[in-house]
Amino acid sequence: MRDFLPAEKARRERVLRVIRDSYRAHGFDEIETPVMEDSDRLHAGLGGDNEKLAFGVMKRALTRDDLQNAQTPLDLVDLGLRFDLTVPLARFYATHRAELPAVFRSIQIAPVWRAERPQKGRFRQFVQCDIDIIGEPGIAAEAELLTATLATVDALGLEGATIRVNDRRLLIGMLTAFGFAPGTHDSALITIDKLDKIGHDGVVAELREKRLDADRLETFFRRPQTMEWNPFGERAIRKALPDGADDDVVAQLVELGDAVGVDRLVFDPFLVRGMGYYTGPIFELAHPSVSYSLGGGGRYDGMIGRFLGSEVPATGFSLGFERLVDLVEVADAASADAVALVYERGTPLATLLDAQRALVARGMRVRLLARPKNLKPALEALKSDGFTKFTTDPATLELRGLD
Amino acid sequence: MRDFLPAEKARRERVLRVIRDSYRAHGFDEIETPVMEDSDRLHAGLGGDNEKLAFGVMKRALTRDDLQNAQTPLDLVDLGLRFDLTVPLARFYATHRAELPAVFRSIQIAPVWRAERPQKGRFRQFVQCDIDIIGEPGIAAEAELLTATLATVDALGLEGATIRVNDRRLLIGMLTAFGFAPGTHDSALITIDKLDKIGHDGVVAELREKRLDADRLETFFRRPQTMEWNPFGERAIRKALPDGADDDVVAQLVELGDAVGVDRLVFDPFLVRGMGYYTGPIFELAHPSVSYSLGGGGRYDGMIGRFLGSEVPATGFSLGFERLVDLVEVADAASADAVALVYERGTPLATLLDAQRALVARGMRVRLLARPKNLKPALEALKSDGFTKFTTDPATLELRGLD
Repeated sequence: MRDFLPAEKARRERVLRVIRDSYRAHGFDEIETPVMEDSDRLHAGLGGDNEKLAFGVMKRALTRDDLQNAQTPLDLVDLGLRFDLTVPLARFYATHRAELPAVFRSIQIAPVWRAERPQKGRFRQFVQCDIDIIGEPGIAAEAELLTATLATVDALGLEGATIRVNDRRLLIGMLTAFGFAPGTHDSALITIDKLDKIGHDGVVAELREKRLDADRLETFFRRPQTMEWNPFGERAIRKALPDGADDDVVAQLVELGDAVGVDRLVFDPFLVRGMGYYTGPIFELAHPSVSYSLGGGGRYDGMIGRFLGSEVPATGFSLGFERLVDLVEVADAASADAVALVYERGTPLATLLDAQRALVARGMRVRLLARPKNLKPALEALKSDGFTKFTTDPATLELRGLD
Repeated sequence: MRDFLPAEKARRERVLRVIRDSYRAHGFDEIETPVMEDSDRLHAGLGGDNEKLAFGVMKRALTRDDLQNAQTPLDLVDLGLRFDLTVPLARFYATHRAELPAVFRSIQIAPVWRAERPQKGRFRQFVQCDIDIIGEPGIAAEAELLTATLATVDALGLEGATIRVNDRRLLIGMLTAFGFAPGTHDSALITIDKLDKIGHDGVVAELREKRLDADRLETFFRRPQTMEWNPFGERAIRKALPDGADDDVVAQLVELGDAVGVDRLVFDPFLVRGMGYYTGPIFELAHPSVSYSLGGGGRYDGMIGRFLGSEVPATGFSLGFERLVDLVEVADAASADAVALVYERGTPLATLLDAQRALVARGMRVRLLARPKNLKPALEALKSDGFTKFTTDPATLELRGLD
């Protein structure tokens, strides 16, 4: 868990504002849920491995007898910190469905917590930025999700971002074409998901270690082709897959590409996405400057229904905020007009505050600074804090550059 | 704990943006700390009664033996949710002092948690908006705090807000003048703090129940004067107090009034503020439309030093965000241009998304809506969601009003 100092916090808020404004412009509505959910709900099996990482909040006013009588630590816990924004969204939607539009486009921008062992690049508190569309079964939902996401990434100044696309139904079709029995699909996908790390030979070897017949997959890997097929479209998708791909699914993805932009999507037949709840198109956000993904998502039609008791289609995209914020340069709109008002101790406070008011009214950011013995290092420090100008005369407010 | 639906969440974000931008303009820097702090630190005696309301987070991977061997629930807890933003700020400052300006003006806008019994108007999760100035011993700090706070309240459109001002040193002087022995001051102040609720007679009666001699205070209450003295300044302060008020303190408050505006401050000799850590000027934000305070604060010179081991002057002001958000009307800058794009199912997605892109590029907020059988109620729903225009033609994008 981290403290954020002023420069980093300002940067985070600027990035959040761009994301929020862009998603709102694309018709999404922001909502907020409490950081704590009922412990039972967090441990209902919808969060995958993350459930084990939920911080538990202890019941209040426990007695020593309560401690003695507890069979497991969970007996002493009634609330927990959310480990993602999807479980809270499902609970929110089930609670408030009647008050929401028939097709509900949500934005959630909020921290989540996971009790990970401390390691580089892993945080126990981190921000997720999720958009979800609930209630639209067609590929129109995915077209909106990806259009809004790419527009947002563009607004952040990350040129050249693309989205890798696959579909769980094509994945299952591919596994079947390669002869994997239905009962082995999950295990095979766990291995195929490692393709980026261990390569073709590693995947084949691990599948064989699992005593799965990987011969047909091995032959497929040996085709004389690259991993990426351009431009995104029917021909590229067909070439990337074994014969017999589901025509309807392929047609949906082709329509998606036409709507979002064929130069912004890349078909990746081996994109798996870890979570078992995905049922349709799946995505990952890629950028040429980094090897890791900057976000991802997919369709999860069965999940909301588990809270609600009736089927509700849903699809979502989660931006990896902590990774994005390290990459982007977002100009501080205010910094061009950040002014230090350097004053002599003994100047009437009324004079100083009037001067501050006058500069703020001109749209400036204004910090007061009692003149130190040595002005130069103080001015240097102001510069590194993002201030660009200063004045030493509260009467005339004559501004001088800080460079 | 509450869910926030789209309209309320949008309103909260608009208010937060006004507050954040206004405080930043006045030279304050936003910081952020993790929501969890070490449990020991939360229970170190700096949080007053709120410490008892801290939610405790259970240690991970506890065994049944751990439960059996625990003497108290706190033995099983290592982290807790913060109950205010002052304890985290003190910890933050002690950790990062070397990286911060000599006079550090902080903004913290963040949720806190208290395990209150559910009751109307009390929330277990709520947002606090604190500004603090650390490192400035003089009344200049208070002048900045109050100027920034009043400008922020004005920016929220709450005309006529004033700040009630007192000083803990004047309070102590007054108790001494009324003959209360030093050992009884805390008890007497707890009673005097109820003046708004129980009136002069109630205060005198309760002090006598506590076996304190309230005769001189009773006489003072019977002076033929009102409770408010205008305009704020030396004459008003002197008239409101018994003779013998500390000249230096009075002079500081007079300077404060001249800087902030004598029509924005009201001297209240019986303003107490609950927290025991205040050492100098104290404040409460009042507005004619409500009887309760909308925020408050004061100088707490001893507190940061308890974390740091050396004295550091500090003063702060906390806006009551949950109360403010209910009072203010903040226009949604975007709502004038919120457009629904109503389309026939079967329209090519590329056509729709191109139309959305074109409208977003014109600065509009755009929501797609598949044309329902009955258009009228759908348009009504859009109107109540803040949309003002719609178009049914993605080719011409001809906009029609929603009224």
